[in-house]
Amino acid sequence: MDIRAASLALHYRLQGKLEMVSRCPIQTQEDLSLAYTPGVAAPCLEIQKDPALSFQLTRRRNLVAVITDGSAVLGLGDIGPLAGMPVMEGKCVLFKEFAGVDAVPLCVDTQDVEEMVQTIALISKSFGGINLEDIAAPRCFEVERRLKERCDIPVFHDDQHGTAVVITAALTNALKVVGKKKEQVKVVLNGIGAAGGAAAKLLLDLGYSNLILCDKDGILCAGDPTLLPHHAELAARTNQAGQRGTLADALVGADVFIGVSRPGLVTGEMVESMAKDPILLAMANPVPEIMPDIALAHGAAVVGTGRSDFPNQINNVLVFPGLFKGALSCGAVQITEGMKHAAARALADLVPPEQLSPTCILPSPLNRAAAEAVAHAVAEEARCTGHARF
Amino acid sequence: MDIRAASLALHYRLQGKLEMVSRCPIQTQEDLSLAYTPGVAAPCLEIQKDPALSFQLTRRRNLVAVITDGSAVLGLGDIGPLAGMPVMEGKCVLFKEFAGVDAVPLCVDTQDVEEMVQTIALISKSFGGINLEDIAAPRCFEVERRLKERCDIPVFHDDQHGTAVVITAALTNALKVVGKKKEQVKVVLNGIGAAGGAAAKLLLDLGYSNLILCDKDGILCAGDPTLLPHHAELAARTNQAGQRGTLADALVGADVFIGVSRPGLVTGEMVESMAKDPILLAMANPVPEIMPDIALAHGAAVVGTGRSDFPNQINNVLVFPGLFKGALSCGAVQITEGMKHAAARALADLVPPEQLSPTCILPSPLNRAAAEAVAHAVAEEARCTGHARF
Repeated sequence: MDIRAASLALHYRLQGKLEMVSRCPIQTQEDLSLAYTPGVAAPCLEIQKDPALSFQLTRRRNLVAVITDGSAVLGLGDIGPLAGMPVMEGKCVLFKEFAGVDAVPLCVDTQDVEEMVQTIALISKSFGGINLEDIAAPRCFEVERRLKERCDIPVFHDDQHGTAVVITAALTNALKVVGKKKEQVKVVLNGIGAAGGAAAKLLLDLGYSNLILCDKDGILCAGDPTLLPHHAELAARTNQAGQRGTLADALVGADVFIGVSRPGLVTGEMVESMAKDPILLAMANPVPEIMPDIALAHGAAVVGTGRSDFPNQINNVLVFPGLFKGALSCGAVQITEGMKHAAARALADLVPPEQLSPTCILPSPLNRAAAEAVAHAVAEEARCTGHARF
Repeated sequence: MDIRAASLALHYRLQGKLEMVSRCPIQTQEDLSLAYTPGVAAPCLEIQKDPALSFQLTRRRNLVAVITDGSAVLGLGDIGPLAGMPVMEGKCVLFKEFAGVDAVPLCVDTQDVEEMVQTIALISKSFGGINLEDIAAPRCFEVERRLKERCDIPVFHDDQHGTAVVITAALTNALKVVGKKKEQVKVVLNGIGAAGGAAAKLLLDLGYSNLILCDKDGILCAGDPTLLPHHAELAARTNQAGQRGTLADALVGADVFIGVSRPGLVTGEMVESMAKDPILLAMANPVPEIMPDIALAHGAAVVGTGRSDFPNQINNVLVFPGLFKGALSCGAVQITEGMKHAAARALADLVPPEQLSPTCILPSPLNRAAAEAVAHAVAEEARCTGHARF
């Protein structure tokens, strides 16, 4: 199948992958007077008295905005807000299809942090949650941080945290397959942009203490004055031995390789230099850092990629629909670290021990049970830690 | 029926009067790869090459944002953005029910003109049109003017122009009923806020040259230094004789009263002071400037109100769904004066001559044919005058 041609044909045929529908048929004068004037004044006045009722009397309870500036769309880069919209619509489709969450795609026509934060904050009361999408690093960090301060609803940059959560779940199960413990493994993570940086933080929080990060110039090492600020912050918490060198140097003796970087960076020889039964989660898209058959031929025990044509597809569609469904269902005021941990645990636990194998570390991205399990775990965590409205 | 209680019950039951649905089922890996990654890159790149394709490859073609700051909601006043949302949702329901137009309700949490314009302009590329709603005068004039300058899609403040168009259509047919011509009638318009001001301008544009405007302090008279700026602008174009006095003074000898003001301002005696066969369009809501039975008892020939329990309901639901449907269908770059005239004509013409009567000057607000007729006329006007993309 020519995916490009087939996708274009689909998009021309559909003229939009989403549609707003009425839940409130208008056939009679009475319908009109209840849904619109004069009856609609009643819910308005209730919300004026108690703003929390907006979660019961409007769609806010189940509504997420999916917002981009178009600056880092897929692997296409800075293609602009308008051109990013087919991806945002696609994301909204997944929200609905996998979790029943209503989602509105929006593009913001600026790349200025201040303008972006102000714009999104000023419309945030229209929604129950904000999913930031495809915003370039390092701008995405600042935009998310400031919006989390200003908004009392979940603000979640999926490229960072959705990816981090699904990686964590995959790694949890891959370690079970090879019989290793997170406290004992050496993990090398390559590509420290939005996704890589968030994955590094989540792994550190979860107790993966032996972590080496690499980017274009090799291993990140604390104290290196040439590091970018967001790299320096992570370098200070990783690579305790102060190792310097290339990705190949880092991989010697490593138990785990995680790639959110570029095609073909890892060779069979590098795999052979790793510890026994190495795990490779090679998520560069569409071509991974190393193809699964090559990695396996050189001794890899478990290989995951972002692709659907190999086993172990690592796709954050397993995370964001359920995570927001859970957050919305309890009126969460934010997405906490604990809620991300709960999502990762729930996702990993969805593969029963007897099914775990080198070719089965995660549920299929099409498995509807994932959103349900993640939603349940996230809502419970939010309620237990006082981050839920209801 | 207790409308208040029934409307609240409806709103609690529905938890939102709208819902976003997917037009693109995701059942297989192939579905996922066409609607989302990697296939979705193809429409993105097409739009990057030719931004106009956003109208074919995303939902923009059929999508309107309904946006308020919550500062002038119904007759409730400044209840804030969150409390205004049930009205915005209701409006979006009407867009879909009457014209098949997808509409997204949004509130902007500021009453600063600069911030509101900037916020709406920066998200405008997500949509094919912007319907401003329930924004207080005079701020609404400036917000709309500046957004029209910045955006290349229709920007339309419905409280102003939707109301003006439906008033014009009603008046056109009421004059046919009493056998008078627009060039010869004396029209008194009371209440010069957003709706009244726009109605005055539209009537002037259409050739109603003998127009007297009244507000709280009586007749607007050019040169009065106490007038508000937007009143002074209209005073200069109306009341050519320089008449001063009260609404009662203005109505002496008038052929038409149009009220978008407050309940009970017009008495039976005032109706008797008007010219023969007077027309009263008394649209204060929910209680009109004069009740129809009183006006008729004192000699009125035609009476219209905003209410559904009397004949001649004047409701802008007859206008905005069709007007936007027409504008979107041809990719209009703005709503011109000509497009408003075309909408008013189409609406008036929808009542066939043989059906015209003192109790039938407009189609019912539930008449689905209105949106179709208005849409057709608006699109044709846009195309003929070079304001259409396709």
